Amino acid sequence: MLSASYVAPRTIEVGEAAVLPPGPGEVQIAVAYAGICGTDLHVFHGDMDARVATPAVIGHEMSGLVAAVGAGVGGWDVGDAVTVMPLVWDGTCPACRAGHQHVCQHLDFVGIDSPGALQGRWNVRADLLVGLPAGLSLRHAALVEPVAVAVHDVRRSELAAGDRAVVLGGGPIGVLIAVVARDAGAEVLVVEPDPGRRAMIEGFGLRAVDPGETDLVGVVESWTGGAGADVVFEVSGAAAAVLSATAVAKVRGTVVVVAIHPQPKPVDLQRVFWRELRLLGARVYERTDFERAVELLASGVVPADAVISEVVPLTAVADAFTALESGRAMKILVDCQVADR
Amino acid sequence: MLSASYVAPRTIEVGEAAVLPPGPGEVQIAVAYAGICGTDLHVFHGDMDARVATPAVIGHEMSGLVAAVGAGVGGWDVGDAVTVMPLVWDGTCPACRAGHQHVCQHLDFVGIDSPGALQGRWNVRADLLVGLPAGLSLRHAALVEPVAVAVHDVRRSELAAGDRAVVLGGGPIGVLIAVVARDAGAEVLVVEPDPGRRAMIEGFGLRAVDPGETDLVGVVESWTGGAGADVVFEVSGAAAAVLSATAVAKVRGTVVVVAIHPQPKPVDLQRVFWRELRLLGARVYERTDFERAVELLASGVVPADAVISEVVPLTAVADAFTALESGRAMKILVDCQVADR
Repeated sequence: MLSASYVAPRTIEVGEAAVLPPGPGEVQIAVAYAGICGTDLHVFHGDMDARVATPAVIGHEMSGLVAAVGAGVGGWDVGDAVTVMPLVWDGTCPACRAGHQHVCQHLDFVGIDSPGALQGRWNVRADLLVGLPAGLSLRHAALVEPVAVAVHDVRRSELAAGDRAVVLGGGPIGVLIAVVARDAGAEVLVVEPDPGRRAMIEGFGLRAVDPGETDLVGVVESWTGGAGADVVFEVSGAAAAVLSATAVAKVRGTVVVVAIHPQPKPVDLQRVFWRELRLLGARVYERTDFERAVELLASGVVPADAVISEVVPLTAVADAFTALESGRAMKILVDCQVADR
Repeated sequence: MLSASYVAPRTIEVGEAAVLPPGPGEVQIAVAYAGICGTDLHVFHGDMDARVATPAVIGHEMSGLVAAVGAGVGGWDVGDAVTVMPLVWDGTCPACRAGHQHVCQHLDFVGIDSPGALQGRWNVRADLLVGLPAGLSLRHAALVEPVAVAVHDVRRSELAAGDRAVVLGGGPIGVLIAVVARDAGAEVLVVEPDPGRRAMIEGFGLRAVDPGETDLVGVVESWTGGAGADVVFEVSGAAAAVLSATAVAKVRGTVVVVAIHPQPKPVDLQRVFWRELRLLGARVYERTDFERAVELLASGVVPADAVISEVVPLTAVADAFTALESGRAMKILVDCQVADR
């Protein structure tokens, strides 16, 4: 089979690797599609070299078919369509004991901390598998993981039907949050500087504005009758957006911190205090979010074809990273089926 | 009567003023004691000149006796011991309509936005009065307002019995939060650089550490078995404390933003995301907090005599501000009884 490994900053090598049988408790998946996300791009840039042991087969957004079942595994048969929830927790740390396994203090994020999906055959712990319904294509199913992120973010916000939500950042996660929030009954405004992304977002029937051209506080004030937004999702990672997030939130409103901010950023704590705001961190997902993501994709709520901007074969995986670097692509999938030979 | 007015930065004038009868719906209070707080100090420094209309009789922490009752007021008699919850909301803004009157978008904070307690006789809307029980001295009752702040902060944190709480900043509000949190069943660690304040806090049976001499993260890790603190109260206003707050909070822990931060401050949003933290702004109080504060003072939970570091007569009110500026005083009360003549 073929496998793609991150070996050094800006270098992914595609090469032959032996197909090993699944171990006890594992399932072997013939990977169909793997999505590339912002975190993979951080790995590609070398920003996570302290965490990633090279050579590293990365990739944690995927779909595929069960190809073999290891000893002691029940409930899965060859040919089953599946995705993987790529979290392995230790079960013993204080966070796990408090019931927050998905943010285990020693979390193994599969595809970063251990081998991932950018290969023809992938041996994975069977308890990480999530089954896919018959009507969901493998291509669309490669979006389950990022949709689960969006489901988790929206669930964590406690957004209610009728709420007005602002999404700061219209990349793949921002768009998926907007779609999930709308499905939950919210009115949604997406703030995104790139005109191409805004056009796509408007194509989904969502309202999108350019932060550089808009008096955002004024727009939200008039939209909400002077109250401010019920929920704000900070998905951009931009310093200006962090300040906008608190500026547009209503009294007792919620700001969900979704983006990665490698360095501390100025936050208007006076506004947090004055309006009794609530800032919530939201990271990855729980199994319920994954299952809900499958439903939202299967039912067509997520405009999957539009979100998938490109599909490249595993042999050209470096192209996927280059395209993603442009900052204008939405979701790029890697077709791993050619690798399964 | 005598009355003290802020007239210009660093200038408070004490002078004679006419005693006016209470208007309809008002009660006239013979003010006994008024406390000076950090916000009053901001006024004194001229930092709030844009908001305060001079000359301004400030002061919003107080106790006194009903001296006269205006037309249409029921339920209060001359001689009743009272304090005042100094919030007037408009009842019509989005925050009020959502039930958050205490953080009304057009809040009149009595003693800042309208005349306050630093005078012999004070005419106040009767609906702001809170009655005091027989066993509570007027001196101690002057602490009801700051204790209500602490009660509100602890209530907002959803702190539970058995929780471990860190209080960053051991000034009057930090100390009162620590006392209220301990009374709610929490174990409390106070972080305070001033040795005199630490000694006082330790005198209350609370643990206090010097942030300059302590590996705070290490101390909290070992104290909490590697989990981190359940609740952190940021009461200091210091940039370093804002970073400490997220560093010592457990997965899904709560950071309550109590202090005033006039400028945006760097917040470790990566930690907020990574640990799925919750940052909550907490401002002033609701009536339930005020009533609970009266109970905590009447029952002796609050070490009121120790918290009151000095009592000065209204004629020497400028001394109260000077003493407060030292940064080492706890609560300074102004005795207004001499002014009531």
